[in-house]
Amino acid sequence: MLNSQDCLFCKIATGKIPSHIIYEDEKYLCFLDIRPHTVGDSLLIPKKHYVWTYDVPDFGEYWETARKITQLMMEKLNADWVNYFTYGHIQHAHIHILPRYKSIYDASNKDMIPPEMKVTQEELKAISERFHNPSR
Amino acid sequence: MLNSQDCLFCKIATGKIPSHIIYEDEKYLCFLDIRPHTVGDSLLIPKKHYVWTYDVPDFGEYWETARKITQLMMEKLNADWVNYFTYGHIQHAHIHILPRYKSIYDASNKDMIPPEMKVTQEELKAISERFHNPSR
Repeated sequence: MLNSQDCLFCKIATGKIPSHIIYEDEKYLCFLDIRPHTVGDSLLIPKKHYVWTYDVPDFGEYWETARKITQLMMEKLNADWVNYFTYGHIQHAHIHILPRYKSIYDASNKDMIPPEMKVTQEELKAISERFHNPSR
Repeated sequence: MLNSQDCLFCKIATGKIPSHIIYEDEKYLCFLDIRPHTVGDSLLIPKKHYVWTYDVPDFGEYWETARKITQLMMEKLNADWVNYFTYGHIQHAHIHILPRYKSIYDASNKDMIPPEMKVTQEELKAISERFHNPSR
């Protein structure tokens, strides 16, 4: 088990490692996955270090926060629906929040998770800015 | 969108279609997936018909129920950790709750979801009985 000093997501939570943030409050941070499977593919983490999502004391609140981001993804990215996944080898609790789009879904696959996309830092920046610009 | 009369999970919720139940309360039902990816692979549904998990009004409570089942899976199945997934083509909200086991994980794969297993009704029955027998 990693301690928080060695933990990538702890470093993202404290801003030591930069990220494309789409949501932040006192306890949680949501940022774009740099290896996204859809446009807006994001990770929601507690700022404090817990290994599993179900270790987070306010587990219901943690998921209510995921729902808040779900609504933002629908408004800001025109997502048609949203999937959640908890898995992964980084030992800091994270919920994958995956916006889905009918056009992609209908055209290319019915996969649980579409294949990984190549994106630039500029593209990620442009996506995150949608969440910070009230006019969009 | 399906209405509840045509809905497979509504029929499971009302007992019209039998299932291997591992948890039930007034609002939620959890039953074994008949096409499991791990031993104990289960689906947690609200008894009322909602299309998406995030349509369930008490979303935090819904997930707190998933955590309750997580703890049961650790006690009754000796799961090492648990993954959650929301996806799927059945238009009745469901959380996949997937117990994971170190032995399987270490030996065969680091996949997000292990391949589908073949199981008999008797095997499913035996698994569900672990959740109803306090001595196990």
